[in-house]
Amino acid sequence: MDLSKLNLNWNQADNLIPAIVQDFQSKDILMFAFVNQQSLQETIKSGYATYWSRSRKKLWKKGEESGHLQKIVNIFTDCDNDALIFQVEQIGGIACHTGRKSCFYKELSPIIEWRERKDLPILKNPEEIYKK
Amino acid sequence: MDLSKLNLNWNQADNLIPAIVQDFQSKDILMFAFVNQQSLQETIKSGYATYWSRSRKKLWKKGEESGHLQKIVNIFTDCDNDALIFQVEQIGGIACHTGRKSCFYKELSPIIEWRERKDLPILKNPEEIYKK
Repeated sequence: MDLSKLNLNWNQADNLIPAIVQDFQSKDILMFAFVNQQSLQETIKSGYATYWSRSRKKLWKKGEESGHLQKIVNIFTDCDNDALIFQVEQIGGIACHTGRKSCFYKELSPIIEWRERKDLPILKNPEEIYKK
Repeated sequence: MDLSKLNLNWNQADNLIPAIVQDFQSKDILMFAFVNQQSLQETIKSGYATYWSRSRKKLWKKGEESGHLQKIVNIFTDCDNDALIFQVEQIGGIACHTGRKSCFYKELSPIIEWRERKDLPILKNPEEIYKK
């Protein structure tokens, strides 16, 4: 698949581009990850979000272990083509490995500390998520 | 202001952390930018979003020229503390220098090209935005 017509500004240091993952219905931001060319091609071809895992240094089809796949609804880019939004249908309703709907479950408190958001409870025990 | 209690994972190469900017009411994603320590301190202290401009290599108080300031409503981080969400009230309703509500105005079409989103028209001529 030829991605050259998309004129994406891949980061020169690591050839990645950030992907903001948003629930297409609620518009909640679920997570933040990176794609390389191959993972973006996989995402478009398969219709399911596939990232580049910087820690594991390999393609990462989101949900391949947990079943919590992310079905692509829309892909957007911004004015300077250096960031993507994946609007997805989050299968199982859980994007975070902690068992929450979204990874962004910490909010800044007035005393400049993080506290847990009340609107993002743990829905499923993480040990249950990755049990085969 | 001491940010150490936030345990943020600043990028080792450039000491920046990405900030996803979201309208606090509509939940639309408006733009994507970066902060360094100083700009995050400024953001928290002033209550208005301040970024680090990678191209101009200086602090960038969003809207300082256009008047389109971003009033901070919430700041969130994710499970591994390496990305932020700024939920904002977008003054003037325009976040993008192209005159649109959001910078993410291009969507992937079935023939793997970008096309303009119909829901993000130009609201104001860019030349008008930056006229003093």
